[in-house]
Parts: sequence; structure tokens; C-alpha cells
Amino acid sequence: MRVEVVDVGPRDGLQNEEKILSPEVRAELCDRLAGAGLRRMEAASFVNPRLVPQMAGAEEVMAALNRRPEVSYAGLVLNERGYERAVAAGVDEVRYAFPVTDSFARRNQNTTAGEAAGLAARLVERARLDGVRISVTLSVAFGCPFEGRVEPERVLGFARRVAEAPPDELILADTIGVGVPSQVEELVGGVGELGVTVGCHFHDTRNTGLANAVAAIGAGAAVLDASVGGTGGCPFAPRATGNIATEDLVYLLHGMGHETGIDLGSLIGVAEWLSGQLGKELPGRVYKAGVFEPVAK
Amino acid sequence: MRVEVVDVGPRDGLQNEEKILSPEVRAELCDRLAGAGLRRMEAASFVNPRLVPQMAGAEEVMAALNRRPEVSYAGLVLNERGYERAVAAGVDEVRYAFPVTDSFARRNQNTTAGEAAGLAARLVERARLDGVRISVTLSVAFGCPFEGRVEPERVLGFARRVAEAPPDELILADTIGVGVPSQVEELVGGVGELGVTVGCHFHDTRNTGLANAVAAIGAGAAVLDASVGGTGGCPFAPRATGNIATEDLVYLLHGMGHETGIDLGSLIGVAEWLSGQLGKELPGRVYKAGVFEPVAK
Repeated sequence: MRVEVVDVGPRDGLQNEEKILSPEVRAELCDRLAGAGLRRMEAASFVNPRLVPQMAGAEEVMAALNRRPEVSYAGLVLNERGYERAVAAGVDEVRYAFPVTDSFARRNQNTTAGEAAGLAARLVERARLDGVRISVTLSVAFGCPFEGRVEPERVLGFARRVAEAPPDELILADTIGVGVPSQVEELVGGVGELGVTVGCHFHDTRNTGLANAVAAIGAGAAVLDASVGGTGGCPFAPRATGNIATEDLVYLLHGMGHETGIDLGSLIGVAEWLSGQLGKELPGRVYKAGVFEPVAK
Repeated sequence: MRVEVVDVGPRDGLQNEEKILSPEVRAELCDRLAGAGLRRMEAASFVNPRLVPQMAGAEEVMAALNRRPEVSYAGLVLNERGYERAVAAGVDEVRYAFPVTDSFARRNQNTTAGEAAGLAARLVERARLDGVRISVTLSVAFGCPFEGRVEPERVLGFARRVAEAPPDELILADTIGVGVPSQVEELVGGVGELGVTVGCHFHDTRNTGLANAVAAIGAGAAVLDASVGGTGGCPFAPRATGNIATEDLVYLLHGMGHETGIDLGSLIGVAEWLSGQLGKELPGRVYKAGVFEPVAK
């Protein structure tokens, strides 16, 4: 089976790093990911640069890319202003995310979950008119740092609302890395019944990320977010840590016979390069352990 | 469903650490694990202390335990001399491990896989006569650092041999952390057909450990090894890293509705204590992220 892997490293991966990388370096990261075979990535975040300085210069990132026709470059947006910036900057895909809890929605984007869901419908309509792809992500779908456990019925309720004006994909995000595979199966299965393409976005905060990824694929998810090197975190979620590492995910997917189009050795090289750029070891494990090759007898 | 978790931290977890903990501290680790609800653990390793100095003083560890009647204290053995030491030291359970490849068997215990399998039958017979439980572990069952991929048929061949004089459990070990869930399902399913109780032992070298654990349970495994804090590695396997962290595993199992009898909060306390004893951060993630509790709104 083919699994689409979206590298969110240039956005989710870097938005919480102490060291701020320039737009040129973030564009180079995208170019390197494309060179390793990634066909989808979140290249930039069109959020308020005063609130998330790591993501300042989204337009400069887009302009500095060596764009390849086979690669879809996405931009994260949280509101209409961000949407307009993203489209003006020439993204191939808009990714709109909103939290399913009011406590998180207020902190993360100064809105309520209900209002944010209404905006999803408007943005999908605008994206259709503008001819760009659009995905909608339900954040904190597996648990909220402020409200605790999130009932599946609440998530599925928002998913049903989104599916009324269906985006190209609906992504379930475990923003703070608390989900477990049984939860994944329930939610992915439930959203899949709505007739939309389902993706998942896992953080590895409690080491459940890859187990959740396997469960998601088993339950019918077609798209998985990951970040090269496993960098990441959310500026507005206490103690959130990185996404599942793209190279760890690819190692697992290839081992299970799935196709991704990604060259694992090249991707490990990107993780090593990013580790150098950030001046620290990254959380991913495969880039440290290496592709499995027997040593000489 | 109830899943039996065996903490191998006092043995597999510590045998590759630079800092050598005294027998008294290792016994205290066992006592703390018992206090957190662990009912099974590998308390000591009856190997040659010149080759693995971290494990020297196995008899002193056993003597220093505050033994609880409800807890089974096991000792790892690699040969008959080790078996005799373990039984003399009063272990409740002998765990005998042998590699399924000759290259690893030669380096790890100076034998061949075939000879080591023959020893399994003798040790099971002796354990029956001595009235101690015995498990047999097939090491490098998912891949060998010297021979590469290990064919499932090779593993199942050794499993069939072991099952002829069945131990209380047969454990499949991914010593170098290369396995993926599809492989786990195949091997656990195959060994389960032999009518023996199947356990699994995973290392998280490539971040596949918990995904493999979920696959193992799904395929019928009843026992899972793990090490508190995720410490570990093998002195004779290049670049091997730690076992899956017991607290990460317990977080996942409880989240999926499985019972373990373990108190996660107490177990996290043990990981924190061990981190202090070793003077370093451990690989486990849940002990850093904490049990999922919403922060104040």
C-alpha cells in the first residue's frame, strides 16, 4: 500500500525551536526534503510572526524555494488573514488547523472551536474558488492540555461539520502526544465513514507515535504527518514535544512493505544536516542508529 | 486483557551502562520496582563478571533483595554454570537466552546456535527437577548485527526445537531493535501455533518498539519485557540501544484498557530515581512528559 508522508518539519518541527533558522535555511530544508523524495511538505506557517518568531518570513521561504513541479508545498493557516497571505505567496496547498476544545482554541488562535469550525467551511469554499488544495486539521483530537481527555463523539461531531463542506483531507492531530492505538482506530474509523480522506498527525511525547501510525494505517488513514529528525512542539501547549520522526516512520513503513517514494538514506542525511543547523541532537532514532545493515563478520 | 510485564531493567537495562551500580543499589532497584507493582523482573545476570562487570555480584543482588512472595525474581543465564549459580542463589525463575545466528552466538556466548538450542532442552529438564520456572529467549530473532535479516523460518525452526521440551515461556527478542510490526505478527503467530506461551522483548533502537509491542499483543503474546527508563543495550551488539521503557509501555497498555497491576505514577518515580543513580537522562519519554493530566484552565 502507498502511504503519503507529509513532512511538517519546516513548520511544526521548527516553530518551537530556540534557535531561529532564516527563511533561506528553511527553504533549503524543503529543497533537501524534496531531494530525498518527499512529495508533500509544510513549507511555511502564515501565522503572526510576533507570536511565533520562528515562523517569520513565510513569504521569503516560499520565494526562496527551488520549486519542483512534482512537490506540493503547503502553508499552515489559522485564520483568513493567514489564508490570504498563503495564497498570495503561492502555496500549492493550504492547511487550516483548529482545536476541538475551546480552552485550546482560545489560547492558540483566540477563537472558539465552534467559530473555528465555521471558518473551515469558508476557507474550503475560498480554496475551491482560488484553485488550491486545502486540508483541515482537528487539533488536540486525542486530548487537550487544558481540558484533558477529549470524547471521541466531540471530535466526530466537528469532523461531521467539516465533512459537510469537505476539504481534500481531514487530519486528526494528537497535538500533545497522549493518544493510544485503540483511540486512533476509533477516530480514524469514525471519520473514514464520513467519506473524506483521513490523515493523522502524531507527536511522540509519550512514545506512542509510531504505534499510533500503524493503527492509523490499519484503520484506513492514507496520509501521515511527520517531521524530519522528530523536531517539534507547540508554543501554546505545555510540555508538548516533537512530531514522529519522518525517517523513523519511513523505516517502519518500508519494513512493513508500504511504498512512500522516499529514499531513507537521503532522508537520514537531511536529519543529520538539520541537526547541524540547529546545533543539537534531534529526537529521531533511525538517523542515529542508521539503516539496518549488518556489520562485517 | 491482562498483560504480564517483566522489568529487565536491573539486568538488560544496566549491563551496558558506563556507570556500574553496586549490588545493593541494583537490589534496591528491584525493591522499588516491586513497590510500583511489578510482579516479575530480571533481578540479576549470572554471566561471567569479567566479561560484563556491570553484572558482577549477582549473588549479592539476590541476597540483598527484600523479597516479596508475590514477586518472581528471575536470573539470566547463558550456560550451565550460570544456571547452577542462579539456582543456588535462589532465583524463582531462570531465563536462558540464545541467539538464532551462529555469528552472534559465537560472540555473545562462544557457542553455535545449534549447540545453544541443545542446551535449552537440558536446562528445561534441570529446571523441572529443581522446581524453578524457566523461560527460553531466542535472541536476534528479528535481525542480527552480523548476518542481517533473519528468515522467519530459521526462527520458527529453533522455536519448534525449543517447544519439544517446552519451557514455561518462549520469548522472541529483537536484540538490536530492527523489527517491524508485520514481522512481529508473523513470528508471534507462528510460535503461538506451537502451543507455548509467547513473550516478546523489544529494543527501541529505531523507535519501533511500542508499535511492535502492540502488534505482539494483537498476535497473542502474553508477556512483554521492558526496562524502567528505557535503559539498556547489549555489550556484544554494535549500536544496540535500550529496551522499550516500562513506563512508556504501561502508559500505552493502560490507555488501551489492558491491566498490568502496575501503578504508573510510582513507576515514573522509579525511573526518576534510576536517572539520579546513573547521573543522566534516560531514553524513556513518559517519565519526562508525565502522566497525562490537564493543567489548570
